[in-house]
Amino acid sequence: MKRLLKGGTVVSGSGAIRADVLIDGEQISAVGLGLEAADAETVDVGGMLLFPGFIDAHTHFDLDVCNTTTADDFYTGSRSALRGGTTTVIDFACPNKGESLQYGLELWHRKADGKSACDYGFHMTIDDWNEDIRRELPAMFDQGITSFKMYLTYPAMMIGDQDLFSALVALKELGGISGVHCENSGVIDALIAEALASGQTGPEAHPQTRPSPLEAEAVGRLLRMAQVADTPVVIVHLSSEAGLQEIRAARARGQKVFVETCPQYLLLDDRVYFQESYTQAARYVCAPPLRKPADCRALTEALAAGEIQTVSTDHCSFTLAQKDAGRDNFTKIPGGLPGVETRGVLTYSALVAGGVLSCGQMARVLSENPAKLYGLWPRKGVIAPGSDADIVVYDPQADSVITAEGQTANVDYNPYEGYRTTGSIRSVYLRGSLAVDQGNVLAGSHGQYLRRGRYQL
Amino acid sequence: MKRLLKGGTVVSGSGAIRADVLIDGEQISAVGLGLEAADAETVDVGGMLLFPGFIDAHTHFDLDVCNTTTADDFYTGSRSALRGGTTTVIDFACPNKGESLQYGLELWHRKADGKSACDYGFHMTIDDWNEDIRRELPAMFDQGITSFKMYLTYPAMMIGDQDLFSALVALKELGGISGVHCENSGVIDALIAEALASGQTGPEAHPQTRPSPLEAEAVGRLLRMAQVADTPVVIVHLSSEAGLQEIRAARARGQKVFVETCPQYLLLDDRVYFQESYTQAARYVCAPPLRKPADCRALTEALAAGEIQTVSTDHCSFTLAQKDAGRDNFTKIPGGLPGVETRGVLTYSALVAGGVLSCGQMARVLSENPAKLYGLWPRKGVIAPGSDADIVVYDPQADSVITAEGQTANVDYNPYEGYRTTGSIRSVYLRGSLAVDQGNVLAGSHGQYLRRGRYQL
Amino acid sequence: MKRLLKGGTVVSGSGAIRADVLIDGEQISAVGLGLEAADAETVDVGGMLLFPGFIDAHTHFDLDVCNTTTADDFYTGSRSALRGGTTTVIDFACPNKGESLQYGLELWHRKADGKSACDYGFHMTIDDWNEDIRRELPAMFDQGITSFKMYLTYPAMMIGDQDLFSALVALKELGGISGVHCENSGVIDALIAEALASGQTGPEAHPQTRPSPLEAEAVGRLLRMAQVADTPVVIVHLSSEAGLQEIRAARARGQKVFVETCPQYLLLDDRVYFQESYTQAARYVCAPPLRKPADCRALTEALAAGEIQTVSTDHCSFTLAQKDAGRDNFTKIPGGLPGVETRGVLTYSALVAGGVLSCGQMARVLSENPAKLYGLWPRKGVIAPGSDADIVVYDPQADSVITAEGQTANVDYNPYEGYRTTGSIRSVYLRGSLAVDQGNVLAGSHGQYLRRGRYQL
Amino acid sequence: MKRLLKGGTVVSGSGAIRADVLIDGEQISAVGLGLEAADAETVDVGGMLLFPGFIDAHTHFDLDVCNTTTADDFYTGSRSALRGGTTTVIDFACPNKGESLQYGLELWHRKADGKSACDYGFHMTIDDWNEDIRRELPAMFDQGITSFKMYLTYPAMMIGDQDLFSALVALKELGGISGVHCENSGVIDALIAEALASGQTGPEAHPQTRPSPLEAEAVGRLLRMAQVADTPVVIVHLSSEAGLQEIRAARARGQKVFVETCPQYLLLDDRVYFQESYTQAARYVCAPPLRKPADCRALTEALAAGEIQTVSTDHCSFTLAQKDAGRDNFTKIPGGLPGVETRGVLTYSALVAGGVLSCGQMARVLSENPAKLYGLWPRKGVIAPGSDADIVVYDPQADSVITAEGQTANVDYNPYEGYRTTGSIRSVYLRGSLAVDQGNVLAGSHGQYLRRGRYQL
Repeated sequence: MKRLLKGGTVVSGSGAIRADVLIDGEQISAVGLGLEAADAETVDVGGMLLFPGFIDAHTHFDLDVCNTTTADDFYTGSRSALRGGTTTVIDFACPNKGESLQYGLELWHRKADGKSACDYGFHMTIDDWNEDIRRELPAMFDQGITSFKMYLTYPAMMIGDQDLFSALVALKELGGISGVHCENSGVIDALIAEALASGQTGPEAHPQTRPSPLEAEAVGRLLRMAQVADTPVVIVHLSSEAGLQEIRAARARGQKVFVETCPQYLLLDDRVYFQESYTQAARYVCAPPLRKPADCRALTEALAAGEIQTVSTDHCSFTLAQKDAGRDNFTKIPGGLPGVETRGVLTYSALVAGGVLSCGQMARVLSENPAKLYGLWPRKGVIAPGSDADIVVYDPQADSVITAEGQTANVDYNPYEGYRTTGSIRSVYLRGSLAVDQGNVLAGSHGQYLRRGRYQL
Repeated sequence: MKRLLKGGTVVSGSGAIRADVLIDGEQISAVGLGLEAADAETVDVGGMLLFPGFIDAHTHFDLDVCNTTTADDFYTGSRSALRGGTTTVIDFACPNKGESLQYGLELWHRKADGKSACDYGFHMTIDDWNEDIRRELPAMFDQGITSFKMYLTYPAMMIGDQDLFSALVALKELGGISGVHCENSGVIDALIAEALASGQTGPEAHPQTRPSPLEAEAVGRLLRMAQVADTPVVIVHLSSEAGLQEIRAARARGQKVFVETCPQYLLLDDRVYFQESYTQAARYVCAPPLRKPADCRALTEALAAGEIQTVSTDHCSFTLAQKDAGRDNFTKIPGGLPGVETRGVLTYSALVAGGVLSCGQMARVLSENPAKLYGLWPRKGVIAPGSDADIVVYDPQADSVITAEGQTANVDYNPYEGYRTTGSIRSVYLRGSLAVDQGNVLAGSHGQYLRRGRYQL
Repeated sequence: MKRLLKGGTVVSGSGAIRADVLIDGEQISAVGLGLEAADAETVDVGGMLLFPGFIDAHTHFDLDVCNTTTADDFYTGSRSALRGGTTTVIDFACPNKGESLQYGLELWHRKADGKSACDYGFHMTIDDWNEDIRRELPAMFDQGITSFKMYLTYPAMMIGDQDLFSALVALKELGGISGVHCENSGVIDALIAEALASGQTGPEAHPQTRPSPLEAEAVGRLLRMAQVADTPVVIVHLSSEAGLQEIRAARARGQKVFVETCPQYLLLDDRVYFQESYTQAARYVCAPPLRKPADCRALTEALAAGEIQTVSTDHCSFTLAQKDAGRDNFTKIPGGLPGVETRGVLTYSALVAGGVLSCGQMARVLSENPAKLYGLWPRKGVIAPGSDADIVVYDPQADSVITAEGQTANVDYNPYEGYRTTGSIRSVYLRGSLAVDQGNVLAGSHGQYLRRGRYQL
Repeated sequence: MKRLLKGGTVVSGSGAIRADVLIDGEQISAVGLGLEAADAETVDVGGMLLFPGFIDAHTHFDLDVCNTTTADDFYTGSRSALRGGTTTVIDFACPNKGESLQYGLELWHRKADGKSACDYGFHMTIDDWNEDIRRELPAMFDQGITSFKMYLTYPAMMIGDQDLFSALVALKELGGISGVHCENSGVIDALIAEALASGQTGPEAHPQTRPSPLEAEAVGRLLRMAQVADTPVVIVHLSSEAGLQEIRAARARGQKVFVETCPQYLLLDDRVYFQESYTQAARYVCAPPLRKPADCRALTEALAAGEIQTVSTDHCSFTLAQKDAGRDNFTKIPGGLPGVETRGVLTYSALVAGGVLSCGQMARVLSENPAKLYGLWPRKGVIAPGSDADIVVYDPQADSVITAEGQTANVDYNPYEGYRTTGSIRSVYLRGSLAVDQGNVLAGSHGQYLRRGRYQL
């Protein structure tokens, strides 16, 4: 089947141009002026912006954590993603310590296969390091896993410097790339122990026990290890100016560093934790925590300046009932925010309409860069001949209001409740099929698993 | 007339994809897979890289300077450019002090109109500042002049800090952008006086009297002025790591800075000035001078990291006979190098084949970024529907050797004599016409003057 | 005559120790425990801190400027200094352009000789540069002038980069040191013209037309010139964090830089200019202007950390009647603050009692460092055998209140009116004589001119 | 008994002045001109420099490590120290994990008491952290232990980030200061495993497995922990420019950091490890390892600029026979260099005579600063009334040659063999007694244990 999107403005990482887009089956076959195709269904997209389907390279669907399971699994999560213009998610396969990578990969396939409405890939979490794990790596690449996640915090998942360094070296040889959660574990543990011992148990203790110098510390440490290993790395969910300064220092000494941040670190700040209502405060608990307004400004400037390559969500949703688990002890609050449904519209409204980013930059940080960084380009991340016909039709005139009420995500709150958007998503195509129309998710569970290649950013 | 380039790899700032390109008259009408057009001449470009026509945003053709005139005028210069894949040059209109901008613009039109084989625009040099000049600015924008050049050195052209600042403020209001030659004039004059007084008259005194801290000084000064004016600026022909550090400092405090460098600052270093032969040494005299190998490395890394946006040439050619004028006094050597003919092939050979840049990055720094920075995008700088069909067909297998002998530029030496290239340019299209084929310049003097819009990078 | 100060605490740059001090004539002859001297007058200084007489290396007495003359000449100024514990001032001899250095020096001798109650030296202002001036330099050194002042702003006094650089080179050969007033002249002129043109004529326009990036610019420029000249320089009256960052950058690249600040840049901020009363606001006009509270904090931290070597006053006093000259145009307000009388007590109260500096650090920045930097050590700047018996007896218990009413300076306001001090000066000895007692200036006009040696810091 | 040292030049941290020094018993009683004391033995020290006895704040005497014991115990080590002008050493009491601090302290008293010829204090090593240890801290302060040592490397001694941070917080409350050995343990372990696995077993693998970014990493990490704890720390034996840059970054963000380096990091570089002779190479094995010449230069400049506060030795001596243990495996080479005997003369020769430091700066980094940093000032570290009469009489004319042959240290090599000194130590006084004369150690085992106060630098 062919579709011809006529009259729209095609946005790529390089900018926006007026062009028609011809879709043939699941791919784009041509981008041109005055395209004609007798056998094609013609769709009028006059006045619309056509973005390459957004890629969310940081989601956690169906994850067991904090003695509970995230509210969104691949069924609800992928639909929430699609509704927000995200046609591809890269979730984190996460074997427990002692389990093999293959086991973890298969487990994640069971969670996602046949359930996901959007396309998906997996990063592999390395929370254990030994000869067996090392020997499994080539098989991972064979199965399309080329990016890996490591933690410098969280006892259940962190690996020490020695193992992390060894993994960096082993992955470098294979052309893999690693994203690392950077917070100093030990000092946070000490601060938490001190806070609890002194009776500070509420959500406001959450940011106080994870101050930004401890993100900066871990960023700095990782970058020194990467310097010795002579390999680039990805700083995931960067939240602070202090961390940014460590990245600048590394780049000034010649290192290649990729940086991801999330809308919550650009648009929200830590004042939310100091609200009187536990329920109001606890819903914002995530790690790293929200920071100061000055951090938001610094990250926004860095994003505009190209110092940050991708904006993902770290979508990890829990209901308010689940968030209630930490009423007596903030460390029991399951950490994470929903976000996969609102990333695109927030980026457009706050940053493009806000004059911070151009449309092209938005396409770069939401689509092109994650596609390149995670080995999906040019199949994904661009509206170009031969690429998958993943297209977000954005109507810049159709302002709206964000609210939990109408959302697809399986959570009963939205961190941006009441936010007035500039424009909204009119429809979304996934591999040529109309997957979302006027806010209705039409797609079935036909999301494809994506075997990814090596990073090329 | 239609042309269909089939089987090539289309390179844009975002990267390289396989696609056919359909040209309809002077524009590209479609980019697609398996494009067909019965009425088109089909050209097989299998195995070729198709770059958007290169833009050289820094040339000096037909310029009177140092009591002589550059060897290349718009006739020879534009043909040299085309042969090197450059389909657009932006030259510097340069009224003398006391002359109006309009006079300077018309003078440059007389130099270029009807002579240039490639398309062209002009930056306007502001070497004088007063109310008359200020009042002329809107008319410049009306005539497509949106970028301006100022000098912090050269008595004939420099304007003081007060005037430069006032010009920045005035241009900001109109949406103009300024490129500035950054070297400290006073200290260089003192060092030259000292050198001459002590009998140092040879070419080796040239770099010694223009040390890199004096570029850094002027870069730093300009950036502080731009900080107060709250406007971005362009650092043209950045040559040193010291200058780069000033740029990093400005960016770290939140400023927007655009940076240009040239192949000579990446590939050549100041050892050439210390050759015994005057003729060998003098040919490399240009300002800023070639620097140390460490500077070349730092700039190359910065280019790869995206800290430098454009690579231009500062083409300003003189014959060896002209260079002879400074035999007894290095300050009399007319300063400048030819370069417009070799920029593309050097960038591909040294940087892409050398593993420093991707093809996409090359397209960005030679085409996309200058097009955006100087208000030509998307008419120029990209192979996309609606864009001018300016296309460089690059054959990555056809290695060659650079030599003055075969060059089109009107000079009797080449700074890269003997350089063995990786690949070479097979053909060049300018607005749909075959302008260069197998090294033969076919284009007539049909280059168009380009009215440029405001910067959008 | 001998005096024995018994029971006090002797403060030096290294710290404070309990010791008796024996004065023999004009010099200190011994520092010891349980000193005895039958022929000495014994003074009980139990509980007192004995500081080496303070040195103010930046005063302007009897200076014609802004069509008027400073309120304090050497008669009142030196007495005001003594009363504040300052036993030595280094004033700026300031020949007009076209006058010889010798003329300027003799003029300043006429202003000071036989009038000054405290000891004094002169820096020589170089506001003109030519062969005659250069040839005069050795004679200056012969007459005890080893430090020089240059201006990067003020048309009447500034010299261009070329001359400033040439002077740095010439002075380096002789072992001289230069202090430079760092503000960008041209941009300030442009901002002033703009402000006046738009009707901003009040004192609040003063700081707005001299923003801190323009101090940073000039600091950066000077330091690049000093880098090429390969010589240390002094940044006088540093007022901003932006300027400090340029100094840090220079030091990080290996340069030696000396930095002076003044109490007003540590303790006052630019909110004073926005007071409604012209009289209240205008009295604080000085250049560089007072800055933001964040600048005060940054300079205070830098002082504590040893990044700033000296605290001087830039005493340049005008009466409120004189300040009135700028009612209709802020550029007509004579710029400068009185300060020579309060520097010591403010430093002790705000910084030592405030926990920022130790007593030893206070002695370093008020006495030891200026003595070394300006070639007076160990004759001045330390309480040690062989040194001049210049001693400030400070009573840390005798709190007081600063007020214009009781002051010796010839001005009718005090910038710190109402400031409650911690302790106060009980007495001051100048070369062994009791010069101040309980706030009464006893000294006659017996101040000596000090021939100074080369810098040794 | 009284002694009167006549005619010398007394050096303090502030500089050098001509003065006589009167010693009464163990203390200095007066410093003055033309001092007389009928009952005193007069010593002519004309032409001599009198330094305050040097303090070596980093020695390891009688330490069991690497399955052996250091060659020097307190008997030989203290005599070696005295002969080198060091009248006070601060050694590291080092309980094993599981032992109490009190046990460690008593053990070190047993090692030192009655054996040491020079005065001595102890830092306490915290290589374990728990409630018992925390509760012991006040008792340590009561016994004069106010400074603590922690390790970020060495399995036997390192404590994790959580414990190190908790210890910093606990020590801060008591006014204690911590010195930390900064190298990343995990990555070094990984590099060592890799080296050994690939057959690299020789001494040249030592520096290669401990590259300087791993010192910088640990410095950066410590400084971030100190930032959160809001307390100053000491970086001991800084060896690299990379580490220095982390310190600069911390200071630029307002932190207080004290830095120690050692002569070996200023004067020797890692080329020694690449000598063919195992014996020649292995003798230089120490951690951190010797670095590149560029590191030596950077540290030397930083020392001159006041960025480094103290020069200690990390004296930890092993004989060549002991060094032989690592012939087949460089990790078995006991790490450490002798140095306590040569620090003063090397500092004078290489740095003072070399034009890098003034005499005053030498006194500061060898005497005054360590005395202040470790709570001994003004009893130690200065020649002033009331201070211990610890005096080094340095003859700047008596050049000499360093050789293992004549040394007092119990080792059969000297890292500086053949070094030609500028001047040498003529005699040393310890608390008024002649302890060394013409190279002969006269002192008996009368060194006193020093109860130290809190840091005051």
